[in-house]
Amino acid sequence: MKKKNIEHYSDKEALDFHNSNKSGKIEIISSKPMTTKRDLALAYSPGVAAPVKAISANPELAYDYTTKGNLVAVISNGSAILGLGNLGAIASKPVMEGKAVLFKRFADIDAIDLEIDSNDTDEIINSIKNFANSFGGINLEDIAAPDCFIIEDKLKKLLDIPVFHDDQHGTAIITYAALMNALDIQKKDKKKIRIVVNGAGASAMACTNLLLKSGVKKSNIIMLDSIGVINKKRKNLNKWKSFYASNTKAKNLKEAIKDADVFLGLSSAGVLSKENVISMSKNPIIFACANPDPEITPEEVEDVRKDAIIATGRSDYPNQVNNLIGFPYIFRGALDVRAKTINDEMKIAAANAIASLARERVPDEVVAAMGGERPKYGKEYIIPSTFDPRLINVIPVAVAKAAIKTGVARKKIDNFDLYSEQLKQRLDPSVTIMQGINSQIKKTQKKVVFADGEDENTLKAAIAFKNSGLGIPILVAKDKVVKERLKDIGYSENFNIEIINSTMKSLREKYSNYIFKKLHRSQGLLERDCDRLIRNDRVIWGSCMVKVELFSLEIQVFMNTLLQNNWLK
Amino acid sequence: MKKKNIEHYSDKEALDFHNSNKSGKIEIISSKPMTTKRDLALAYSPGVAAPVKAISANPELAYDYTTKGNLVAVISNGSAILGLGNLGAIASKPVMEGKAVLFKRFADIDAIDLEIDSNDTDEIINSIKNFANSFGGINLEDIAAPDCFIIEDKLKKLLDIPVFHDDQHGTAIITYAALMNALDIQKKDKKKIRIVVNGAGASAMACTNLLLKSGVKKSNIIMLDSIGVINKKRKNLNKWKSFYASNTKAKNLKEAIKDADVFLGLSSAGVLSKENVISMSKNPIIFACANPDPEITPEEVEDVRKDAIIATGRSDYPNQVNNLIGFPYIFRGALDVRAKTINDEMKIAAANAIASLARERVPDEVVAAMGGERPKYGKEYIIPSTFDPRLINVIPVAVAKAAIKTGVARKKIDNFDLYSEQLKQRLDPSVTIMQGINSQIKKTQKKVVFADGEDENTLKAAIAFKNSGLGIPILVAKDKVVKERLKDIGYSENFNIEIINSTMKSLREKYSNYIFKKLHRSQGLLERDCDRLIRNDRVIWGSCMVKVELFSLEIQVFMNTLLQNNWLK
Repeated sequence: MKKKNIEHYSDKEALDFHNSNKSGKIEIISSKPMTTKRDLALAYSPGVAAPVKAISANPELAYDYTTKGNLVAVISNGSAILGLGNLGAIASKPVMEGKAVLFKRFADIDAIDLEIDSNDTDEIINSIKNFANSFGGINLEDIAAPDCFIIEDKLKKLLDIPVFHDDQHGTAIITYAALMNALDIQKKDKKKIRIVVNGAGASAMACTNLLLKSGVKKSNIIMLDSIGVINKKRKNLNKWKSFYASNTKAKNLKEAIKDADVFLGLSSAGVLSKENVISMSKNPIIFACANPDPEITPEEVEDVRKDAIIATGRSDYPNQVNNLIGFPYIFRGALDVRAKTINDEMKIAAANAIASLARERVPDEVVAAMGGERPKYGKEYIIPSTFDPRLINVIPVAVAKAAIKTGVARKKIDNFDLYSEQLKQRLDPSVTIMQGINSQIKKTQKKVVFADGEDENTLKAAIAFKNSGLGIPILVAKDKVVKERLKDIGYSENFNIEIINSTMKSLREKYSNYIFKKLHRSQGLLERDCDRLIRNDRVIWGSCMVKVELFSLEIQVFMNTLLQNNWLK
Repeated sequence: MKKKNIEHYSDKEALDFHNSNKSGKIEIISSKPMTTKRDLALAYSPGVAAPVKAISANPELAYDYTTKGNLVAVISNGSAILGLGNLGAIASKPVMEGKAVLFKRFADIDAIDLEIDSNDTDEIINSIKNFANSFGGINLEDIAAPDCFIIEDKLKKLLDIPVFHDDQHGTAIITYAALMNALDIQKKDKKKIRIVVNGAGASAMACTNLLLKSGVKKSNIIMLDSIGVINKKRKNLNKWKSFYASNTKAKNLKEAIKDADVFLGLSSAGVLSKENVISMSKNPIIFACANPDPEITPEEVEDVRKDAIIATGRSDYPNQVNNLIGFPYIFRGALDVRAKTINDEMKIAAANAIASLARERVPDEVVAAMGGERPKYGKEYIIPSTFDPRLINVIPVAVAKAAIKTGVARKKIDNFDLYSEQLKQRLDPSVTIMQGINSQIKKTQKKVVFADGEDENTLKAAIAFKNSGLGIPILVAKDKVVKERLKDIGYSENFNIEIINSTMKSLREKYSNYIFKKLHRSQGLLERDCDRLIRNDRVIWGSCMVKVELFSLEIQVFMNTLLQNNWLK
């Protein structure tokens, strides 16, 4: 097993990222032109009266005339934030904003975060219900069990749009997809496998529920919570735990894990020992999904078993079980048929689509997008990469079909080939291309000249280039102007970035000579003309520099791509 | 009085506008780069833990690490939509989305609409309260009186962010600003004027409250509701109306308006007669602000009085009292100092700033932005235009200063000159330039060649150009490809747009000859080379066409601006 490189960054960097340029991660813009008086008359008063009346007569037209059909609310009360616990609603906002922009980045869904400052389930349900009708779907997030079960159940009954608690169902779908492939590779039959589920929180419950629905035998499941094995002798179990209370004689994890085929951990770091792993059946499957640190590391498993498949929640090991593979695309499919709910059939369809994708040969364009890596279905590749650009046109199709088949779709799709093509076009192609370019560029750490260095956007590009670790930017600009611009865009004027300009005499002479040699015959330029040229035009200066210093020109393409897109706005 | 041109459009056009390309008007994007694994690691897991912990320790840091500080919720229950009445929450969504994009367009504020499906004030208050902490401010909209008073009052007490019912306070601020200037021009003293307020809804109450606070005498005010004069004899008045119950003997509008200095109408179309106007004092002031049709038209007033100033809510007459002059900038100022509320001092400061602006000479750049029109302070210009680009750096400064002075600002501004400069930069300068270009272009209805007509964005630009009535677009493209592209972007393949291409032999020969004449000496091109050139490169074809047909090249600048900005995304 080869551990991958992981990006390094400090807390300070993460804080700066959130506070740079514009605080936070969300921006809300108009999807329509808003320039002329006519635009405003159509978008607002008096033109807006037409859609208002239409929707008043037929509320389903909100899908046509408002953003509803592409709009998801990401809602949390902050009672179970990441692995950090109940830190309250406002502290969960960075996570929810992050989730919202992931929806956009991976599935072109407009998502807004709403943090609800309450721990009372009735109040939470009521508040969400009151606002829900404006959305095409609701993604619940980071709400502690068992409140999350009550809230989701009740909202599903009250609302006719999808309500999806991602910590439960997103995790369950990805886990189930990965497990199907692991079973296939280890040649195990899901009807016969013995599973130990360590953890009895929201995600553990949802995973186990989905396994049951897909054919795993309840009698072959042992679930443990922080107290120990959940068995029939335990008292005061809530209704969700008591459903999984088993007749086993095993009293603890050590006894439960013996001869088990599968360990599914959604608990906490380090709880599975090497001895536990040794006692498992032949060709065991270990999903150690505690975040950020797994129940056991892949290295530890490898120390004691060569026949195991191990998956974790981490990006630095193979087989990352990451919800990002699921939720954007599941909602995409559900929204595109205006689904009333996300039912089990849609979840299983999504899981099957994900599992199948991992078994397919990875095509060249995907290899390019992923920086030259071509994974192959097997013990270290049971699940697609989060950056696999095929996810967008595979999962939504499966989900939409299942929704139509089970009668929860308000809208039919006639031509699924066309739909699949449209899905591909949802993503900005330059982003996929950029991923590949990024991976290539990082290896080389080249110097790049940002010629028009006094331009604010160029400066931002240079900073982004540096901060992303792509290489070393060099600005052609006056020091004083750069310092001012840096302040304007919210950076310290002492931000460390290399600046060159025509006050640097030796450079100026060198480049002036270069131009003179090149141009004095063809254009009849004198030396003083060349000197003036180099002093007055930063782009000419930059070009000379690239030529003389043998910097890479190819990377200029990268900068232009950055500038032409919106990322540096 | 010169009636202005008003944009014409049909309900169908308004519906198409809302349903074209992407349904609705809102798009939610990431304000941060989300391309690389590093970006994702910083924006979401695991990097997001740093801001989560920071905010958990100090909730005010949400202003630094989340969008909170630039985020406004536009909230309605749809109980008083436009002039249309109680059509329910979801029917109000187009209006609220429109309001949200106006916030962005005019003040760079990220605003999201939330429609609350309830008519119970306690439930509304409670639901808003639960979600409010994620926002920097709350704009209530189109909620019927007297519920709106109760909801706003209670929320103001519960929350430590601005809660602003725009129908009340926005209207009051603009009305007060316009009235101050009208009084100045008519040489009337606000302490002595007699005012008739026709209407007792949310906006009428708020306007009258603000007038009282600014020095108008309560004993000089007569208010009427739909039943008649609100006087002390009336029974069952709610507490808001009974506050304004007067001792007048006037029983109806006819009697009340006699010798009045000011008529302030926030009621319904046509209720003020010519006879009423004739009976008013010398140099009367008539604000006929019923929407969409005023209490009396300016033409009718002019028929009977030459000494009157009249203002309406309409854009086709002078003196438009439009909330758009206020709310974006009032919130901008409040957000920039992280204000805890928008108090009366801030409202009056905004009104004063607006009134002063109308008295200033309109500078050339504003004239250009407004299409060559230079209004001059006087009876037909008592209030700035909604498109006046100076609003953004005048009103927020006044509001922010008042917030700091009254102690409701969490954040100080040290350098107001710098702040004013930063405000100017908030708006996309090309939008202002575009306004001027648009006005110029429309007059000429020129033909414009969109050379790369098979490109989706160019096609969208051409359609936008046509739909905006700017001129006649001509695409250089294959018919078949355009038909496909049209379908891709959601238009009928029969959309009426002129297409030319190299299959049109006579044109092809004409342009090929043109190139040949131009290039065969300098470049040694043969006729067949020129023919190939013209066939293979649509941009060359387009350039030839522009030259040969003497189309205007200058307008190409317009198209490029459109493409380079985000509007055609």
